[in-house]
Amino acid sequence: MSIFILLSTEEMSKKPLILVTNDDGLFAPGLKALVQIAEDLGEVVVVAPGSPQSGKGHAITINEPLRINRVDAFGKIEAYECSGTPVDCVKLAKIILLKNKTIDLCVSGINHGSNASINIIYSGTLSAAMEASLEGVQSIGFSLLDYSFNANFEICKPFVKKICEYVLQNNLHKTKLLNVNIPVGHIQGVRICRQANARWVEEFQEGTDPKGEKYYWLTGRFENLDNGSDSDIQALNNGYISVVPSQHDLTQYDAIQPLMRLQETI
Amino acid sequence: MSIFILLSTEEMSKKPLILVTNDDGLFAPGLKALVQIAEDLGEVVVVAPGSPQSGKGHAITINEPLRINRVDAFGKIEAYECSGTPVDCVKLAKIILLKNKTIDLCVSGINHGSNASINIIYSGTLSAAMEASLEGVQSIGFSLLDYSFNANFEICKPFVKKICEYVLQNNLHKTKLLNVNIPVGHIQGVRICRQANARWVEEFQEGTDPKGEKYYWLTGRFENLDNGSDSDIQALNNGYISVVPSQHDLTQYDAIQPLMRLQETI
Repeated sequence: MSIFILLSTEEMSKKPLILVTNDDGLFAPGLKALVQIAEDLGEVVVVAPGSPQSGKGHAITINEPLRINRVDAFGKIEAYECSGTPVDCVKLAKIILLKNKTIDLCVSGINHGSNASINIIYSGTLSAAMEASLEGVQSIGFSLLDYSFNANFEICKPFVKKICEYVLQNNLHKTKLLNVNIPVGHIQGVRICRQANARWVEEFQEGTDPKGEKYYWLTGRFENLDNGSDSDIQALNNGYISVVPSQHDLTQYDAIQPLMRLQETI
Repeated sequence: MSIFILLSTEEMSKKPLILVTNDDGLFAPGLKALVQIAEDLGEVVVVAPGSPQSGKGHAITINEPLRINRVDAFGKIEAYECSGTPVDCVKLAKIILLKNKTIDLCVSGINHGSNASINIIYSGTLSAAMEASLEGVQSIGFSLLDYSFNANFEICKPFVKKICEYVLQNNLHKTKLLNVNIPVGHIQGVRICRQANARWVEEFQEGTDPKGEKYYWLTGRFENLDNGSDSDIQALNNGYISVVPSQHDLTQYDAIQPLMRLQETI
């Protein structure tokens, strides 16, 4: 009996620690799908925002305090609701809840809607994953190209699981962040890609509120400017899951030399 | 007389259009300093957040409407207060206030505090400039390494002006975004740099609010992990203004080939 207990404890301690988060909030079906996948792969802790945080980018809360509450959202799995942004969730999880214990994988999503191409800049989902990656944690942001609350996550679940398993089993070395986007419907496979050159063509819907004050509400359409066959948008258009290895060094290296004239001018 | 008017109009239309914004809000002394510099160089429009927006990163407001109000903050200069984030300010300025007119330069700041190295990810100042750069506008984020409200911007003003003039007079081609950080005190000159590898070592100050509820308040210290002589932190430590040409493609290109095994696995 004592041997059995020893083995069992040892086995448990080998389970990878997986942090699950998102930007759509604790009750988004995409988060539930990701938690279901993660619990097959390791010990899971969920920390998600209390309210939808789409478009929050890499925002952090510095001028006010944050709150966290344990919630019974996923049965036996430890789950917390956080008052802040997706990046706040990751910081609180790492420092307060996990007391700087080593996190083996951070998965964020599955987002309801695309985070391909330039969307990575605006995305709370990807910013949460990036925040974990800044701490050296292998991190993946998952997004399904369906914005609806009732999006069907079943088709993509086996693929999401395989990608998580690959990252858990293989050291990706310098690569700490994958931006994974998933097309709707039948999936042809996976493509390793670069971020497409694309933009949002935006407008503001103008209106007048009940008090007679004018308001502006952001709206827009996505425009792909990239004809390359190796971009994430191209992969998605062909029915493939796009995987973009991503990083946080924004330096435009090939511009350093041409700019030396500015250095000499001043 | 009519000839005089014609010439005068023509001359006016030649003045570059400069959009000035920040993340510290409309009444920050750093914004005033930047407006004073910009008005010597062109036609200026100021659009700044109504409240401090430090750490807002590339957040945008999509779930609620935005407001803009004309304010008399800088005498004759057109100035507006916006209810949203720094990125919202730039979108509203471009689409609503300037009706998609060509902006020749967008300057953001001068921020009260450093945006060197990894701070670019969290910074509202730099995200505002990046948003303009996504629209093809040559953009500069300026930050002084002094967090105090009463920071002295006088020493750096001639340098800020020269950098703006250089960008207005020289086509930087593909380069659309400069992250400029300014040391405190005597300035040795300007250095074109890459983003240093650095991180925030963070903690949460724990407390209890008047209602007896626990809260967590983010605090931290910056840690430079980079010994390279060509980084922005190194330039700043040596008394130079750091200029990092920056961009929004987060693809980690050298990771694409090693990841092909993942593509083949699935």
